[in-house]
Amino acid sequence: MTAAHGDTGLLAPGWADSAAASATSDHAYLRALLDAEAALTRVQATLGLAPVEAATAVTEAAAGAFDVRSLAARARAGGNPVIPLVAELTKVVGDEYGPYVHRGATSQDIMDTATMLVAARTLDLVLADLGRTEQALARLAAEHRDTAMPGRTLTQHAVPTTFGLKAAGWRALVLDARDRTTAVRDALPAQLGGAAGTLAAFGAYGASDPMGLPAAYARELGLRAPDLPWHTLRTPVADLAGCLAFTAGALGKLAVDVLTLSRTEIAEVAESSGGGSSAMPHKSNPVRSTLIASAARRAPHLAATLYGSLAAEDERPAGSWHAEWEPLRDLLRLVGGAARDAVELAEGLRVSPGAMREHLDLTHGLIVSERLSAELAPVLGRARAKELLTRLAAEGRPLAEAPELADVDLDPTHYTGSAGALTDRALERR
Amino acid sequence: MTAAHGDTGLLAPGWADSAAASATSDHAYLRALLDAEAALTRVQATLGLAPVEAATAVTEAAAGAFDVRSLAARARAGGNPVIPLVAELTKVVGDEYGPYVHRGATSQDIMDTATMLVAARTLDLVLADLGRTEQALARLAAEHRDTAMPGRTLTQHAVPTTFGLKAAGWRALVLDARDRTTAVRDALPAQLGGAAGTLAAFGAYGASDPMGLPAAYARELGLRAPDLPWHTLRTPVADLAGCLAFTAGALGKLAVDVLTLSRTEIAEVAESSGGGSSAMPHKSNPVRSTLIASAARRAPHLAATLYGSLAAEDERPAGSWHAEWEPLRDLLRLVGGAARDAVELAEGLRVSPGAMREHLDLTHGLIVSERLSAELAPVLGRARAKELLTRLAAEGRPLAEAPELADVDLDPTHYTGSAGALTDRALERR
Amino acid sequence: MTAAHGDTGLLAPGWADSAAASATSDHAYLRALLDAEAALTRVQATLGLAPVEAATAVTEAAAGAFDVRSLAARARAGGNPVIPLVAELTKVVGDEYGPYVHRGATSQDIMDTATMLVAARTLDLVLADLGRTEQALARLAAEHRDTAMPGRTLTQHAVPTTFGLKAAGWRALVLDARDRTTAVRDALPAQLGGAAGTLAAFGAYGASDPMGLPAAYARELGLRAPDLPWHTLRTPVADLAGCLAFTAGALGKLAVDVLTLSRTEIAEVAESSGGGSSAMPHKSNPVRSTLIASAARRAPHLAATLYGSLAAEDERPAGSWHAEWEPLRDLLRLVGGAARDAVELAEGLRVSPGAMREHLDLTHGLIVSERLSAELAPVLGRARAKELLTRLAAEGRPLAEAPELADVDLDPTHYTGSAGALTDRALERR
Amino acid sequence: MTAAHGDTGLLAPGWADSAAASATSDHAYLRALLDAEAALTRVQATLGLAPVEAATAVTEAAAGAFDVRSLAARARAGGNPVIPLVAELTKVVGDEYGPYVHRGATSQDIMDTATMLVAARTLDLVLADLGRTEQALARLAAEHRDTAMPGRTLTQHAVPTTFGLKAAGWRALVLDARDRTTAVRDALPAQLGGAAGTLAAFGAYGASDPMGLPAAYARELGLRAPDLPWHTLRTPVADLAGCLAFTAGALGKLAVDVLTLSRTEIAEVAESSGGGSSAMPHKSNPVRSTLIASAARRAPHLAATLYGSLAAEDERPAGSWHAEWEPLRDLLRLVGGAARDAVELAEGLRVSPGAMREHLDLTHGLIVSERLSAELAPVLGRARAKELLTRLAAEGRPLAEAPELADVDLDPTHYTGSAGALTDRALERR
Repeated sequence: MTAAHGDTGLLAPGWADSAAASATSDHAYLRALLDAEAALTRVQATLGLAPVEAATAVTEAAAGAFDVRSLAARARAGGNPVIPLVAELTKVVGDEYGPYVHRGATSQDIMDTATMLVAARTLDLVLADLGRTEQALARLAAEHRDTAMPGRTLTQHAVPTTFGLKAAGWRALVLDARDRTTAVRDALPAQLGGAAGTLAAFGAYGASDPMGLPAAYARELGLRAPDLPWHTLRTPVADLAGCLAFTAGALGKLAVDVLTLSRTEIAEVAESSGGGSSAMPHKSNPVRSTLIASAARRAPHLAATLYGSLAAEDERPAGSWHAEWEPLRDLLRLVGGAARDAVELAEGLRVSPGAMREHLDLTHGLIVSERLSAELAPVLGRARAKELLTRLAAEGRPLAEAPELADVDLDPTHYTGSAGALTDRALERR
Repeated sequence: MTAAHGDTGLLAPGWADSAAASATSDHAYLRALLDAEAALTRVQATLGLAPVEAATAVTEAAAGAFDVRSLAARARAGGNPVIPLVAELTKVVGDEYGPYVHRGATSQDIMDTATMLVAARTLDLVLADLGRTEQALARLAAEHRDTAMPGRTLTQHAVPTTFGLKAAGWRALVLDARDRTTAVRDALPAQLGGAAGTLAAFGAYGASDPMGLPAAYARELGLRAPDLPWHTLRTPVADLAGCLAFTAGALGKLAVDVLTLSRTEIAEVAESSGGGSSAMPHKSNPVRSTLIASAARRAPHLAATLYGSLAAEDERPAGSWHAEWEPLRDLLRLVGGAARDAVELAEGLRVSPGAMREHLDLTHGLIVSERLSAELAPVLGRARAKELLTRLAAEGRPLAEAPELADVDLDPTHYTGSAGALTDRALERR
Repeated sequence: MTAAHGDTGLLAPGWADSAAASATSDHAYLRALLDAEAALTRVQATLGLAPVEAATAVTEAAAGAFDVRSLAARARAGGNPVIPLVAELTKVVGDEYGPYVHRGATSQDIMDTATMLVAARTLDLVLADLGRTEQALARLAAEHRDTAMPGRTLTQHAVPTTFGLKAAGWRALVLDARDRTTAVRDALPAQLGGAAGTLAAFGAYGASDPMGLPAAYARELGLRAPDLPWHTLRTPVADLAGCLAFTAGALGKLAVDVLTLSRTEIAEVAESSGGGSSAMPHKSNPVRSTLIASAARRAPHLAATLYGSLAAEDERPAGSWHAEWEPLRDLLRLVGGAARDAVELAEGLRVSPGAMREHLDLTHGLIVSERLSAELAPVLGRARAKELLTRLAAEGRPLAEAPELADVDLDPTHYTGSAGALTDRALERR
Repeated sequence: MTAAHGDTGLLAPGWADSAAASATSDHAYLRALLDAEAALTRVQATLGLAPVEAATAVTEAAAGAFDVRSLAARARAGGNPVIPLVAELTKVVGDEYGPYVHRGATSQDIMDTATMLVAARTLDLVLADLGRTEQALARLAAEHRDTAMPGRTLTQHAVPTTFGLKAAGWRALVLDARDRTTAVRDALPAQLGGAAGTLAAFGAYGASDPMGLPAAYARELGLRAPDLPWHTLRTPVADLAGCLAFTAGALGKLAVDVLTLSRTEIAEVAESSGGGSSAMPHKSNPVRSTLIASAARRAPHLAATLYGSLAAEDERPAGSWHAEWEPLRDLLRLVGGAARDAVELAEGLRVSPGAMREHLDLTHGLIVSERLSAELAPVLGRARAKELLTRLAAEGRPLAEAPELADVDLDPTHYTGSAGALTDRALERR
């Protein structure tokens, strides 16, 4: 056990060993930084601002190995890792083409662009997992369209609902998350502005049309062309914060419901493969939900940090930008891990219609008291109807035994209202 | 000074006495709650579920006076203000039509719908103020398209930029805020689902097509029809959180820049009417920026509270819903107040091109050292060029006096790169 | 319904109509601001810096009525309410003694001091309610020292515990909250520094020992004397943030446990007077817990806003100070309301030992499988013991029927370990 | 560049390569987990619950190498890394003494105890750095006791202050941070409760006095003995959140002041070795302050996540506990890194009394207008005095040229009030 190895998620069962973890590792960021540098030289070569050989040299050098730990340590002097990386990359490229490395750019151009590359790659993973999750939830909703269960409000049985409607609701949130994430992913821009966002250095180095550079750069990298350099116009980061906090919360709703419904006393659903305990073999912990719920607790705070960085002073700020890096990566990882867990949770969820049916009788018929209120009021008058129900509720006797209710339909499975129709309509959404 | 009066913003100069303050007051919420109740009965009358006279009676009663303080106090028993309000409204409507008040609905239907009405009304105010702000900023950007000033990064002069580009950047953020806010405002839905979101009670009360009710209800109120009851599918609230945190941050960027640029030592801009001090007559505090910056500090935390409420268990939750009310109102108010202040700030901002020009010389020419690096490197070689500049920087002598630089254009106003072109393009956005 | 009245907590059943609400209202702040002004003149009179008549005149004027709504509106110009208040108070005091109003002070001296007065008054209320709560919990813990119930981990039954130990744990958190809050309350300082915290103006007005003024001022108000003016050394505010977030969370633990244990399927505890529903007479919602849980969700975000304001630039900051006012008041109110609800919750909690006993059998004996593992391993060997238990768990048959376990004590009430002794020891803490 | 290596802080120049980074790495946590396991067996051996040979065997095995990446991946199944670690450690210990590994404990006992070990080790580093920082600040305060400079409020010059008082204020905050951190560090408890916190398994394994075990365990590890198992009584974690958020903010105040004072236009202080720029040799960025300010922006959100986890349901919770791990580690690292940077910042800060003196004249004497108000009022009457100053302020002429002020002391260095005396008194605090 040496200290030479870095962190791999020992404290993060929610995202360790996931595709999102790889896509957001220090090495993935380093790769993206190198991609951003190489693309910059290539684009300048395309526009005649650098020899084609320089582009080749930088691209080849950027494909090589760099010591991420050493770069991390040396980032401290100037406050960001691009500074030592550029020094090293330049050295590797060599005297002839070294001067074309990073030419005209500022550290933040590269850092922001690399961050967008990492975000794009991670969101693609997230979107794929959201897709699988919504499909699994759609199947659950269709299958259990008419599976009645207690509707619960403020922790208490209220009136019946269906598991289909519940699953359709979970899916609706996942689709909302997908739509928001897709829109943000498709708008992720490259960054290119130079020291103060004026593109001046590119002109100094001979560009006749510096305004065309950012767009060409974005094309080279598969990102969107920015309207303006956004060193302190942090819309892309804030939008990421919003869609990631939303996605974490959307999956969090699914998780807290599963946590509740899989309680020992309720047991209406169960995860396919609960986490066990060696000393307590009966335990089957809802681990997937636990980890998703944990991510949902953290995400809003991380997003808030990013929203807070919108207020970035000057042309490039002293602190607010630096405060974005880790929280954004954490959000991407957490949501990536939560989406992975959501797939497994949704695809494997075991549903117990029997338990649901039994629980509908736990209140001895009172779960349909709303219906009785509605139906008895015209007959008995509102006051007497309420009086009757309140008395029966207080007595705790099954309503079916009350002679006053002999002719009323007390079957809770007959009081699910439009749950089925709502489910059908919700499932039409693609 | 009696305790009978409530809070009116003594601790909130940012929003006190604003249109947004009125639009979000307890009374505005009470009005919206009553609007929601009255619309519910009217819609039921339209669909034949209640007598037309009931709709008239409820609408008239809802137009009357209710004691908001008493309602607030009585809200405690059941945990929300709709419960005592319905009791009181029913009493005012009277025995005959009282039973048609709130029929089939749950408290949350009314509370959520009222909240959306309040949000819609407040966002309209915000959008109007964002419109005025962006226009003022557009004028500033156009007017100062070529006003050179120091570009500042990590608090230090870097290379020149223009005030036009800075103002265009502020405006771009305001437009981003406008676009996000408009999209959210146009999607604000009504809420109608009944006790557990199944619309069952409406059926029990005789509705042949309960699925049509929410859409009709939304139309009656000028809100969007929801796909599903969203008691625990909180997309609309999360979307509000996102666009409001974004708007606060967008205006916050403007504010922190003005705060910096109006420091006594910099004084490149000034607010039109700074806050004064009786004992220090020279002081002209940037109060509008201060209050906007204060809102930008608070908004992310409030938004995070709302994002956290996405993870709402069951059909209606015990706590996460209740945790939304005040933070959402606070966000609406804060952003409403900040938008008001932004109008005044942008429309009244005084700009000092002279101070900007002077500051460009503060580093004795080094502010164009990037240009010199680019231009000298081909001549002297990269290493010698850098050496020269580093030596000159260390000496602190004006570069213009250095014989090596005799033939170089050291005028900082000539090194603003594409600032003008970027400004022009940014101003094309509407 | 006129707009002339202010907000009284319509959106805040958690604190509306509470003593903490009164103690933190705009009027309470106005009262505290006036107290702070009057004390300042009195102290100067005591030290010979103002005529005794001035002290009397200011004290009498400060006891009068001021229009809080108008002050709130006028606070906007300078960014804080002290500026218009001083103007008005000076006018009321009149020409002769008016000059002694606010002499030598800065707005922030008065605002901060008033805030500490409000905080002290509210914390006293909180501490009293924490005291009643811990006593009620101590009674519950003692009474149910040996009431066995399922211990639940990750939502699943694990091993037995006792309700006494659970209540003792709740109480321990309340005592932790009390201790932290008491320490902070006793350290709340007055603020007095003048424009930039140097006390210079007091010297200019003739004070021979300006250093003595803050201490005398603090004594006059019953606050602690500050070591230094703390305009931008915000320890007192951060400490309030910490103890209030802690208290909210401590009560939140109690609340989330009650919410879980009062679920329809569990029903091991119930609030004394649940919130009802007119249409569903069986519903008895755990409203006190719901409102406390809601406060616990919000408090960390409000505290974070205050911690964020520690980074306050210069001698008095542009925004971070202003961002404290409403969040601190909100925290005081929320925690004040939550403490009120906690008293009612703890004093009225109904406990069902019968339900607890029944649930211990829900896993058919597996709730003591940990004990069996320990006891069977030496007999059967570890592997075989585990195998046996896993098989029995999978079969779902009552363990009591397994012949292999004929001689083992399977009574879950006999496997509560040191719960009783831990409870006893915890109750010794005062 | 292989993916086999983990993260080492590429995105975190604030803490990469610091002692705190090592103290909080995955490997440090793994080491602490192993320490916690080994101590548990040793303590049981001491109490006669395990053979001495078992203690030796476990201690030796725990000193060996484990694959942290593999453990991280396998943590996913059960939701925490202790489960696979125990399995592996047991295997290494071998058949004979393997059964004594982790005996009677629950995963959370080990995880929480290890976390406290890591926290204790990191806080010791933090405290040492706070000590060095406060000493450097004390030297600055003493040296510059009488160095006058502009006092700034809401970004504008107000009245003079001294750099000594400013440095003394920074130090006071650092001492407050030290005191709060020391108290929390000394109270960090071990965790030992077993599956549901009743210590039952220890009894099942033969302990005659299970109540004595946690205290003995704490002694073995140099931690405090807990009053109760604190699986869901999270006072220690909340206290860490509080002191770490406080420390980040306290250092943040120092950082934002240095950022302001080192602006190109102000340049009253400079960091000893600013971060450079290859293309702009004049740039000397205040990198230490930038990174500290960045930490101060993030810390409150991380602390809020931890405060939010106080509301942890049941005997061990499903999500809130898991949500603590990474944020607590992040806080420890961020604050550890910020404390390291603060040492360097404070020890190396370069102060320019000359620049300060010059800036005192920027307002042409108006910086002492408060004094003039005080001194002229008795002579001219209050109204006329104010009128005169307002007129002079508007004219922008040096006050020294105004004949009305001929006899008044306008030297701003003579108007620093009690700054020196306050500094002296503050420096008496140890």
